[in-house]
Amino acid sequence: MNNETVKVGLMGFGTVGTGVVRIIQGHQEDLVKQTGLSIQVEKILVQNLNKKRSLQVPSDLLTTNAYEILYSPDIDVVIEVMGGIHPAKEYILTALEQGKHVVTANKDLMALHGEEILSKAKEKQCDVFYEASVAGGIPILRALIESFSSDRITKIMGIINGTTNYILSKMSQEGADYQEALQEAQALGYAEADPTSDVEGLDAARKMVILSTLGFHIPMKLDEVEVKGISQVTKEDIAYAKKLGYEMKLLGLAEQNGKGIEVSVEPTLVHKSHPLASVHGVFNAIYVHGEAVGETMFYGPGAGELPTATSVVSDLVTVVKNMKLLVNGQGISSSYKEKKLKADDHKYAKYFLRMIVSDQPGVFTQISQALAEQNISLATIVQQPHPKEKQAEIIIITHRAAKSSLNQALSQMENMAIVSEIKSCYRVEGGEAEWLA
Amino acid sequence: MNNETVKVGLMGFGTVGTGVVRIIQGHQEDLVKQTGLSIQVEKILVQNLNKKRSLQVPSDLLTTNAYEILYSPDIDVVIEVMGGIHPAKEYILTALEQGKHVVTANKDLMALHGEEILSKAKEKQCDVFYEASVAGGIPILRALIESFSSDRITKIMGIINGTTNYILSKMSQEGADYQEALQEAQALGYAEADPTSDVEGLDAARKMVILSTLGFHIPMKLDEVEVKGISQVTKEDIAYAKKLGYEMKLLGLAEQNGKGIEVSVEPTLVHKSHPLASVHGVFNAIYVHGEAVGETMFYGPGAGELPTATSVVSDLVTVVKNMKLLVNGQGISSSYKEKKLKADDHKYAKYFLRMIVSDQPGVFTQISQALAEQNISLATIVQQPHPKEKQAEIIIITHRAAKSSLNQALSQMENMAIVSEIKSCYRVEGGEAEWLA
Repeated sequence: MNNETVKVGLMGFGTVGTGVVRIIQGHQEDLVKQTGLSIQVEKILVQNLNKKRSLQVPSDLLTTNAYEILYSPDIDVVIEVMGGIHPAKEYILTALEQGKHVVTANKDLMALHGEEILSKAKEKQCDVFYEASVAGGIPILRALIESFSSDRITKIMGIINGTTNYILSKMSQEGADYQEALQEAQALGYAEADPTSDVEGLDAARKMVILSTLGFHIPMKLDEVEVKGISQVTKEDIAYAKKLGYEMKLLGLAEQNGKGIEVSVEPTLVHKSHPLASVHGVFNAIYVHGEAVGETMFYGPGAGELPTATSVVSDLVTVVKNMKLLVNGQGISSSYKEKKLKADDHKYAKYFLRMIVSDQPGVFTQISQALAEQNISLATIVQQPHPKEKQAEIIIITHRAAKSSLNQALSQMENMAIVSEIKSCYRVEGGEAEWLA
Repeated sequence: MNNETVKVGLMGFGTVGTGVVRIIQGHQEDLVKQTGLSIQVEKILVQNLNKKRSLQVPSDLLTTNAYEILYSPDIDVVIEVMGGIHPAKEYILTALEQGKHVVTANKDLMALHGEEILSKAKEKQCDVFYEASVAGGIPILRALIESFSSDRITKIMGIINGTTNYILSKMSQEGADYQEALQEAQALGYAEADPTSDVEGLDAARKMVILSTLGFHIPMKLDEVEVKGISQVTKEDIAYAKKLGYEMKLLGLAEQNGKGIEVSVEPTLVHKSHPLASVHGVFNAIYVHGEAVGETMFYGPGAGELPTATSVVSDLVTVVKNMKLLVNGQGISSSYKEKKLKADDHKYAKYFLRMIVSDQPGVFTQISQALAEQNISLATIVQQPHPKEKQAEIIIITHRAAKSSLNQALSQMENMAIVSEIKSCYRVEGGEAEWLA
């Protein structure tokens, strides 16, 4: 930087990149007052110089050559909002190698290669911030790094994928089935043509890697997250959940206790009294439980041009303040704790089970015996006739049970002659069930 | 500090002070890993050396002489958790004068004398942090200062007083009247024997001074906050609110637009679809609307030994990190914007009105005419018989109207022969009313 202006190289000029330029231009006066320096976008990396854009910028700002940013001696900070793993990773590592600070919104990259990038940043005494990579407009990473620094976080639960939350909200509020809700989400631009990454929970799993790494100070890996998506969730499941006082949510969960940690993403019944249950539509929310602080929750937009860009520019402001104080690269949090993953017999949760059984005497005894043998006790049981003749539907909510025990009981029940089908099995969070007739 | 240990003087050893010592002792290893320094409580100011305490500490830690902390060359950081204005203010100013950093949980002090304290800190290049002064366990000040630094905040709405939220939740959930709910809150220790400061909104007003000063970068003063408490709220008001789809909350509000700013604390009907409506009991939540980020909300415990102490120790960790980087006193946010308070004819809101009128033809015409003359249009009208013979009860929810117009209409209606009593008038926030029979 010269004495008065920090120069930024922007890599990617899509939705978020456009928002970043808009905010830097529109809030220049405030930014100067806050940092004492003006901030200027010096170059923007694009794929096509001649593309029509919603925001006009002088044509000499644009370049298709990444090296004009990465090796420019004028540029102090690189903002990476192009997405994808390659070449974003190489660009960021090069930028750091050149002593440039980095702000990125790239969750895929940070989930897969965060450790490598952060360690390079440390080596070069450069900042890397990535608040926008999880839950766009919600300052959750900062909260985990700074505000809960004196606490021990025991649990993080997040609704961190707007697409699936939109679909599940739609199914819950309108009784739509999964395909209808998905199609509507696609028509509104909330879901992509190939929705796999969202609906199968992969997007949420990447965010959980970032959240659990920061929250627990451990180097979490993507393949250590158990992932189950929402494509098998039926409107019947949701209707039963509602009757029992629960909302179905795709929940990212990270939990630690003396037995180790577990991180998962799966459709979960959340009791309506829990603050996460009233997070609807494309909104995101992250619930954090700390030993000392107790329950907290952070709610806001999970995506969108301006919310995400706001987080990027807030990170940029932190970089600029650090530049002024000559303290860049000091705030990089390290994973100093030993990572011990819980075995299934240490993973405890309440579960919702729904199954179709023969409607004959003694059936329930066999079911409850299979569960009792695994030390699983029952909190709520509902049995009702099933449209098919001589069949009944049983819905059970268990007390807390080990996952290994549940799996054993499930495989035993699957083999019973009287069980026609185990329709569904979901984790349950929050208060007790009631049967709302 | 010597090279390895930061020494802390603690002023006050009540609930929060005890929590601070517990956390510093219990998390020493984590604190060292995060800051590279160990943190040690060197002296604790108490009123009575011989009092029985829930936490035992070596007796030479305790002192009744503030000067042993304020003038000790060994002590680097003063944590003030004694409360009250005097002598806390003098102690903090002396500590700063002596070059010590300060962490305080004292909202009364920061609301009344924040400017003086922050300017002294700036002059002496010392840190002053006060996260715990608003909404105990919720890191809202940090969010306002750092995360929304690149955004323009347009609205802050907070449920920031646990006592009143407990009382209102009780009235709403159990149909209790105000006195019953207050007595229960007192019995549970959620309300003090003299509950005035909480129930009349003064505690919340002080927090709104702090929030609006930081959020809008203006030097807000306590006497510029319009304050109305909950002692006049009846269970009938709450029942009607519910029927219309609203929850009654004591809401701190700070709003700014081109016409200026307004800051108030008053009982408000919040639509059930709004995230603040489901904040019950002693929990706090702060809703922040930013031009770019849109809607966000921060939820958590508003008080309590450990939540508040967690915020205090997080501030302490920031001070220690700053000490290591030699950048103390740099992060003090200043009120660089011009303060322009809105006149009543620029304050717009929706309102709920409830009144008892004569049950005779033409009554409603007169009422609606008084409102129409002030350009107030009506969103919802419910009229129903009142137990008293020949009287009716009218409930109105208006569209957005200027406060000055509303006041004019109210005084005109009060003088009408057909109006026996205007029972209540509340601000309304969030979605549209419905009549749930």
